[in-house]
Amino acid sequence: MSTNPQPSDVTVLGLGPMGRALAGAFLAAGLGTTVWNRTPGRDAELVARGARPAACAAEAVAASPLTVVCVVNYDAADAVLRADAVASALAGRTVVNLTADTPERARDTARWAAGQGIRYLDGAIMTPTTTIGTPDAVLIHSGPEDLYREYEPVLAALGGTHTHLGEEIGRAAAYDVALLDIFWTAMAGWAHAVAVARAEGITARELAPFAQGIGAILPPVFAETAEDADSGTYSGEGNPLTSAVSSMAHIVAASESHGIDAGVMRAAEGLARRAVGLGHGDDGFVRVAEVLSRR
Amino acid sequence: MSTNPQPSDVTVLGLGPMGRALAGAFLAAGLGTTVWNRTPGRDAELVARGARPAACAAEAVAASPLTVVCVVNYDAADAVLRADAVASALAGRTVVNLTADTPERARDTARWAAGQGIRYLDGAIMTPTTTIGTPDAVLIHSGPEDLYREYEPVLAALGGTHTHLGEEIGRAAAYDVALLDIFWTAMAGWAHAVAVARAEGITARELAPFAQGIGAILPPVFAETAEDADSGTYSGEGNPLTSAVSSMAHIVAASESHGIDAGVMRAAEGLARRAVGLGHGDDGFVRVAEVLSRR
Repeated sequence: MSTNPQPSDVTVLGLGPMGRALAGAFLAAGLGTTVWNRTPGRDAELVARGARPAACAAEAVAASPLTVVCVVNYDAADAVLRADAVASALAGRTVVNLTADTPERARDTARWAAGQGIRYLDGAIMTPTTTIGTPDAVLIHSGPEDLYREYEPVLAALGGTHTHLGEEIGRAAAYDVALLDIFWTAMAGWAHAVAVARAEGITARELAPFAQGIGAILPPVFAETAEDADSGTYSGEGNPLTSAVSSMAHIVAASESHGIDAGVMRAAEGLARRAVGLGHGDDGFVRVAEVLSRR
Repeated sequence: MSTNPQPSDVTVLGLGPMGRALAGAFLAAGLGTTVWNRTPGRDAELVARGARPAACAAEAVAASPLTVVCVVNYDAADAVLRADAVASALAGRTVVNLTADTPERARDTARWAAGQGIRYLDGAIMTPTTTIGTPDAVLIHSGPEDLYREYEPVLAALGGTHTHLGEEIGRAAAYDVALLDIFWTAMAGWAHAVAVARAEGITARELAPFAQGIGAILPPVFAETAEDADSGTYSGEGNPLTSAVSSMAHIVAASESHGIDAGVMRAAEGLARRAVGLGHGDDGFVRVAEVLSRR
């Protein structure tokens, strides 16, 4: 396979909504940017803005010292990166993999990269596509610190706050999974609340201002209960697990009285009841984290 | 039964942490406040501050034109209010029931109260005990508007923002259930994230600043997706259900690889997969609210 690509500063593999946002931010920062996507035709707007198209992934990665990958998951990333021609072209170059997946997949890809002589950083993007290139972007990274420092100026083109979480390559993915856990679980609660409210004749718009108030309570609760979780002294003062169980039972009853599936809350209630059953009824809710970890 | 209680402005039945906060706020506002709790001994600090103790619930409610009830649930509230002596003493007086339970229980109690000639308002307290008597308190009410207006000045002693949601007596409880649904589901996500992070060698304190960032994203997401839910046009732009399913699968895999129960996320993932299976893969996550409502 090829190639004599025009040299560029950075290559972006994967031109879904996030990949296009990343490439757009690199272009906006004046960086020579090569782009490639498995399904053709996604690069038109970027090429119009000055991005260099590549005929294949191997040509794309050969064009730049740094390749940023952002595809749907590591199965998709591996399918591109581990093709022989791509792996060969990447030897001695650097990959920053911003694809989301589990910590174990990040570790596995790092092991593969080491065997190929590919320099490897893993990362995760914690904010929506619209934040990329703005001060609101939040990105986390893990892997060799010197390699991170070398490409920090290029990654800075993506805007916002970048945090290097440590050398252990799975760390960014571990944070990503934990943070998406909070986000998607909360969203499941919101969607369920919308369904229950609607059954009670309340529109989502009517509920939203109060829901925003509940959302605003969460960050300080996270900060306070993080202290509890780390110290193992769970204060249930004013809001013990027994109260949580009572609330949760009301939610399940109200939901099911309207024929609305309460499976998510039933699962959460079950955990809270287990914690109470283990003698932690006076503790705060985050005691549940310890119950979850019991083998 | 009795009684010649000293007349007071307001009676508080139930002196758990929230009941004590309510009575304390009434006292701080200079209102004559009678207090009673099923289990004796909870009133000592309030009595030291000027609250009037009552020998029994009937004596307590006879002391004031307005009785505020805040106990663990409606089983507990009914056990107090529906005793013959208490019901008789309440005839012609007003009850504001700030006990949390389902909308149906609120409706049932309102029907009972109407039969007894008791004027009845239902309400819910959306903020922690520490907010009571401060500008941060959030209370919601439902029931006859004229009755609410009559006692609004007394209830204002509890501080914060009071909203009368409508005459339908179950409305405050319906909002309460929906909002607690969001809160406790999000807390289940946070506790699970703490467990997964810990298994990956990340402390809750290390995770907390990023978790607070996720929490800060939620209120604007609630506002935006409320529009989608009411209009039935779910925009998945940049964050379609198919992406949510992919993220959720990573969370379940990472959790279970550490032997951590992922039942809450499995239930949420199942709903998202159902929505995708019904052809809504390109829609935003809140499409799940409609899937939940299907009979």
